[in-house]
Amino acid sequence: MDAERADTALDRWEQRAELPLFYASLVFLAAYSVRILAHGVDRVWREIALAMMLLMWLVFLTDFVVRLRLSGRRLHRFLRTHWLDALVLLLPLLRPLRLVKLYTTLQRRRDQPVLSLYARVIVYAGLGAVLLGWAGALAVYHTERTAPGATILTFGDAVWWVCETLTTVGYGDVTPVTAWGRIIAVGLMICGLALLGAVTGSFSSWLIQVFTREDERRPPEDRRPPGASS
Amino acid sequence: MDAERADTALDRWEQRAELPLFYASLVFLAAYSVRILAHGVDRVWREIALAMMLLMWLVFLTDFVVRLRLSGRRLHRFLRTHWLDALVLLLPLLRPLRLVKLYTTLQRRRDQPVLSLYARVIVYAGLGAVLLGWAGALAVYHTERTAPGATILTFGDAVWWVCETLTTVGYGDVTPVTAWGRIIAVGLMICGLALLGAVTGSFSSWLIQVFTREDERRPPEDRRPPGASS
Amino acid sequence: MDAERADTALDRWEQRAELPLFYASLVFLAAYSVRILAHGVDRVWREIALAMMLLMWLVFLTDFVVRLRLSGRRLHRFLRTHWLDALVLLLPLLRPLRLVKLYTTLQRRRDQPVLSLYARVIVYAGLGAVLLGWAGALAVYHTERTAPGATILTFGDAVWWVCETLTTVGYGDVTPVTAWGRIIAVGLMICGLALLGAVTGSFSSWLIQVFTREDERRPPEDRRPPGASS
Amino acid sequence: MDAERADTALDRWEQRAELPLFYASLVFLAAYSVRILAHGVDRVWREIALAMMLLMWLVFLTDFVVRLRLSGRRLHRFLRTHWLDALVLLLPLLRPLRLVKLYTTLQRRRDQPVLSLYARVIVYAGLGAVLLGWAGALAVYHTERTAPGATILTFGDAVWWVCETLTTVGYGDVTPVTAWGRIIAVGLMICGLALLGAVTGSFSSWLIQVFTREDERRPPEDRRPPGASS
Repeated sequence: MDAERADTALDRWEQRAELPLFYASLVFLAAYSVRILAHGVDRVWREIALAMMLLMWLVFLTDFVVRLRLSGRRLHRFLRTHWLDALVLLLPLLRPLRLVKLYTTLQRRRDQPVLSLYARVIVYAGLGAVLLGWAGALAVYHTERTAPGATILTFGDAVWWVCETLTTVGYGDVTPVTAWGRIIAVGLMICGLALLGAVTGSFSSWLIQVFTREDERRPPEDRRPPGASS
Repeated sequence: MDAERADTALDRWEQRAELPLFYASLVFLAAYSVRILAHGVDRVWREIALAMMLLMWLVFLTDFVVRLRLSGRRLHRFLRTHWLDALVLLLPLLRPLRLVKLYTTLQRRRDQPVLSLYARVIVYAGLGAVLLGWAGALAVYHTERTAPGATILTFGDAVWWVCETLTTVGYGDVTPVTAWGRIIAVGLMICGLALLGAVTGSFSSWLIQVFTREDERRPPEDRRPPGASS
Repeated sequence: MDAERADTALDRWEQRAELPLFYASLVFLAAYSVRILAHGVDRVWREIALAMMLLMWLVFLTDFVVRLRLSGRRLHRFLRTHWLDALVLLLPLLRPLRLVKLYTTLQRRRDQPVLSLYARVIVYAGLGAVLLGWAGALAVYHTERTAPGATILTFGDAVWWVCETLTTVGYGDVTPVTAWGRIIAVGLMICGLALLGAVTGSFSSWLIQVFTREDERRPPEDRRPPGASS
Repeated sequence: MDAERADTALDRWEQRAELPLFYASLVFLAAYSVRILAHGVDRVWREIALAMMLLMWLVFLTDFVVRLRLSGRRLHRFLRTHWLDALVLLLPLLRPLRLVKLYTTLQRRRDQPVLSLYARVIVYAGLGAVLLGWAGALAVYHTERTAPGATILTFGDAVWWVCETLTTVGYGDVTPVTAWGRIIAVGLMICGLALLGAVTGSFSSWLIQVFTREDERRPPEDRRPPGASS
């Protein structure tokens, strides 16, 4: 733990890069959506979208390398404490997750209270599930749209399929039929399960916390320890 | 925490308004059900139901404004501690949740023991799931009933669909086919997952508590710490 | 808690009644199964089964009343500490749950170690889920067998349906189509969710406990606090 | 607990047998896969695979007996502390689980940090789910492939079915129709639920741990206790 002291140069870089990187991630997400969804329009738009995606990814890579250098650590040790950054580099669609960090940074700079522990886990994991689901819907739509015997025919179907998959409801009215569609589906199920498990687990813990605090707010002569009477 | 001292005026208002507001919420729920389910009968009943809903919502709004004023705080800070009241104002169908608070208040006034922590979470979250499910069944029934190719044809189908959705079983024998039906379904899945996760999580914690207490009830010479022997 | 001292007379009754009541519960379960499954054979067997069920239920009622009297408490207070007994009286199919208590009693009498806390929760909740599922399969099979358009046609189908329902997988290849079948299904889903949630939650806690203990078993110079290195 | 002192002879055996046993388990898994999947090729390969499976199982049995002897305990007490070894003997497909132990042993020998508690539970339970799923896919494929009316026709279908079953999504586009296929499915559902419950539970706990640590890393003048502000 003693190796985790705040490096001043690294901190300054992170503070300055925060907002530009956030806008870059929005551009990346929009470009990816355009590339997949605009299959009916002029081909040039899709090429522009691809170019934007590569450009933004180079921005993310540059940021990662700069931070690795500024930290003065070796890659192996840097990854141990910055696993989220590396994950975001590999799956840039998760980039907007940093939105939450941005909010936390801004609130702290203004000396305002940040969200509670459970609320932050819920927001992080929930936002992660939304972004994962959006990317999954795009990818599955791209794969299944033209497959013979497919049931996922519109992007709306793909979004509906993602929602019933991530919540593990799984009606089966629309399902992927191609091999690649199913591989994406399995990845989505596993990540979705973990993320939504974190969301519901934290919600449950938070609800119990709220009720416990309500108990503590009562005047002492009226208070009983939680669970004393059942 | 020091800002949360009981304001006397606010407390008095809350105690007096408790029962009337509870009856108002029952009227609201009944009016909404009449509005959706009574599509075969005279149109005038549905208009009366709509009028009742608006009236009851005005009652809830008045109560919210009065309490905001009595608290002497600004909206931003008031919302932080009274998030449940604001939620109930937006989704008045959740209003009967206050039934549990009413029970707690009554029990405490009579100096009788209240439910344990986990039991209250289970009752709150479970009742929330029931009300959410009822409202969802009404809304989906209203949307799907006349859609071409729909499988949700009766209100019984809608209730059955809500049950298999909230528990994430999802047989898929009845599913929404319209865009609005699916949007309602997604909202239902997400809220239902969180609420039922809280219910099962609390049930599990409560069961472990019961077993731990059983261990502690044994005579000391016979007692072993939990988990000491496996 | 001070009211819960062991009453000697009650204790003696419970120790003596344990084994006979356990056999009675097995007879009850068998009689119920015979009543539902033996629809092809002579009618007289089903009548005998019904008679056995009533007789066994009277035995359970007698035991409950005797224990209520021996405890010297009023019904209200007795229920608070003996909720499991009352539940078992209403749903006698859950009776074999006492098997675990029997095992605990026997192990303790022989001065042998009992199962750990989580193991007992898993066994209790898991056994409860099995019994609930068995009873649910019988009831749904009875309701659906002769319904028009039914997909649950054999008892094997009913058991398969119960398994996919309790685990919330819900393929939808066999589903109840009658109103009563669906009502039983909803009851099964809710109870099953809670019980299996308790099983998986306890399994998870137990696994973490096992791993924590493994950490503690290491020689001290080699030990690191759990989680210190990620 | 005092009976669990490290036996030197047993320790030495375990250290020496670790790597050979790991390779043996890989051979076993490969042989089982060959036996099931190679139904189109020459019969002799499947006989060789069966022979390899029996041979490897004898290796596992020998290891178990040697360790039982070296421990100097009776079978009953040995099982209590080595339950994982006994389970692995009965279900040799779970053998590669020891891979994690191997990693832990190697890391500790090199004085490098091991994975945190939650990470190890996730890896163990996740790897167990993968192996269980692989074995289940093989077994169900073997059973269903030639059944009339089957929907699981290729090994790819079987793997897809296992994924949607273990995550409890259950679309129902492919389902087992034979009695044996359904029995394997039920076993898979129950074990899968428990293992994936452990994975998502640990992931959730680990995420909360990560966020808590992030709170603690802030400079003290800026730090607020988690949850203080909601």
